[in-house]
Amino acid sequence: MHTLMVDFAHRSYSIYIGYNTLSKLTLSDNNQRHTQFVLITNQTIANLHQATLLSYLSNHKIQTIIIQEGENWKNLDTVSNIIDQLMTMQCDRHTTLIALGGGVIGDITGFVASCYRRGIRFIQIPTTLLAQVDASIGGKTGVNHPKGKNMIGTFYQPYQVIIDLKWLDTLPDPEYISGLAEIIKYGLIGDVHFYHWLSTNISALMNRDQTVLMEAVYKSCQYKANITASDEYDTGAREMLNFGHTIGHALETITKYQDMLHGEAVSIGMVFAMKLSLKIYDMPQQNLTDLIHLLRQAKLPTDVPKNIDLSVLLSILFQDKKVLDKQLRFVLLKKIGQAVVIPISSDMVHALLSEKAI
Amino acid sequence: MHTLMVDFAHRSYSIYIGYNTLSKLTLSDNNQRHTQFVLITNQTIANLHQATLLSYLSNHKIQTIIIQEGENWKNLDTVSNIIDQLMTMQCDRHTTLIALGGGVIGDITGFVASCYRRGIRFIQIPTTLLAQVDASIGGKTGVNHPKGKNMIGTFYQPYQVIIDLKWLDTLPDPEYISGLAEIIKYGLIGDVHFYHWLSTNISALMNRDQTVLMEAVYKSCQYKANITASDEYDTGAREMLNFGHTIGHALETITKYQDMLHGEAVSIGMVFAMKLSLKIYDMPQQNLTDLIHLLRQAKLPTDVPKNIDLSVLLSILFQDKKVLDKQLRFVLLKKIGQAVVIPISSDMVHALLSEKAI
Repeated sequence: MHTLMVDFAHRSYSIYIGYNTLSKLTLSDNNQRHTQFVLITNQTIANLHQATLLSYLSNHKIQTIIIQEGENWKNLDTVSNIIDQLMTMQCDRHTTLIALGGGVIGDITGFVASCYRRGIRFIQIPTTLLAQVDASIGGKTGVNHPKGKNMIGTFYQPYQVIIDLKWLDTLPDPEYISGLAEIIKYGLIGDVHFYHWLSTNISALMNRDQTVLMEAVYKSCQYKANITASDEYDTGAREMLNFGHTIGHALETITKYQDMLHGEAVSIGMVFAMKLSLKIYDMPQQNLTDLIHLLRQAKLPTDVPKNIDLSVLLSILFQDKKVLDKQLRFVLLKKIGQAVVIPISSDMVHALLSEKAI
Repeated sequence: MHTLMVDFAHRSYSIYIGYNTLSKLTLSDNNQRHTQFVLITNQTIANLHQATLLSYLSNHKIQTIIIQEGENWKNLDTVSNIIDQLMTMQCDRHTTLIALGGGVIGDITGFVASCYRRGIRFIQIPTTLLAQVDASIGGKTGVNHPKGKNMIGTFYQPYQVIIDLKWLDTLPDPEYISGLAEIIKYGLIGDVHFYHWLSTNISALMNRDQTVLMEAVYKSCQYKANITASDEYDTGAREMLNFGHTIGHALETITKYQDMLHGEAVSIGMVFAMKLSLKIYDMPQQNLTDLIHLLRQAKLPTDVPKNIDLSVLLSILFQDKKVLDKQLRFVLLKKIGQAVVIPISSDMVHALLSEKAI
């Protein structure tokens, strides 16, 4: 098992990564004030994993709140509904919430924890690969507004993060692969050795080899934890994490989050950002060929689907959070392992989007 | 004019106190990114003060959101409604909100600022005495849940606080007096000299004498800023600010926030806490007599109204946030200017509540 300590302004906390890490759940403290726990999850995850989790907590009083499944329910109504139940359960400032699930569960639970009685503890137990390497780390919480994703949220750090790779045994292939895209991203933007290691070990990773998977998740969490701790409120370095996400988010918006998983959209976005990088920086064409080869081995898509209207895609790009003074900005690579954010003209984006895929 | 600098973990900011302090409004910064401003207020305040404020901002693009008036509208629906309008106005992470009004406006605006796109700037311009000396300082934001007041909120510091005593010219007497209760509280819990100064100057304060009022507000803000900066997340010293509020909040709950202003309820609560202090600590009876005399000069009530059912009042006390392990806890005085929090048996509270008023 790996343990990462993360230092944020108010406090430090641990991220545990490995198999059977649930034993690390810290549910008591010295003054015995935190004795009430509320598990927040959805029905599918409850059916799969609730019993396992509760077996680790047999000495504690745990209540459960089941929320509706999926991105459509990640909204203020669900927040209000959860808070209503917390009030009924007489939860006070010493109650701890436990988020068991993917990114949606973690984001909602973190947001509720950040504003119920002005902030209570919460523990992240991510059950998807994507949530394990991305959403559960860094303290971004939030829900959607009808007019925009994650428009309502806070920066709020969990009390601890427990990443148990055992949960992944029941994760369907498409969701597993979606997580791989973010793992590959960390190599591209921050660690050339990790990127080459991933290229070498992609078959083992696709076969969910335990040793390789643990190393890949650990390296990813380490990178994400470091960059977010250095920029808790997302005003600088954290922007690099957006590599592949400019086009990625636009594709998710255009397909209404129905036809494409997050990692699939990011995969297409990374290929596009690599093409832009080649145009602007002196990078070898081989970098692009290698990336496409790696993503294809991971069964990830690399091209914008043919049915996407490019002019609509371009107009949606202007809603991107990196846009400054109506100027598109992209995270590009100067070389593998080194990312930068630069303004890019919409003409250049349009021209490159119109090029035939290689 | 007085200027207070307050140091919180993430940042420092200024509180300006005096007459015509609006000139201190800082609406631009070096990188010129913060160019969009949204004023949040209600119709009554807009009618009284919006024109004055806008005259200071004639070079800026300011939009206004008018929200419904009163505590009943301090809820998640109003938050959602404001966020909807911010989205329509295309507000981004560099938009600044300006809260113009009393505690309700400040609490809602602060909460929206803390969670719109995970946090944007907001400026507090409190227009009531109560908000000037209490709610606008310390970073507590929030809205009510049907089952409890301020159950949904955050700790989020404003970008600056502009306290213009000129607004008070149009403040009705009962609301002005309500603010005096909190000012007297600061003397009682933290500064015996200030308390004696208030006793000497109460007539001038009742006449809204500018020099005396400025000194009273400045001392109050200074005390509140210091204690909240030392305990941003309300886990220790900040509890002292609850002097008089245990009984006070219960009275507000029992009268459904209809029959009693906050300062009136706190005034009754302070007299009760002083009686308890006399019983427990070796304080002279004169302290109680003097306090009642001072509060009566300020036209504040000192006794629990006769129509209040004491057993209901007692049961509501157990919802107080200071309750620990089902034990009531009160802020008491060891002497004027020195407060402590101690457990008190409900029997003693009941006995003292049943005693005839002096």
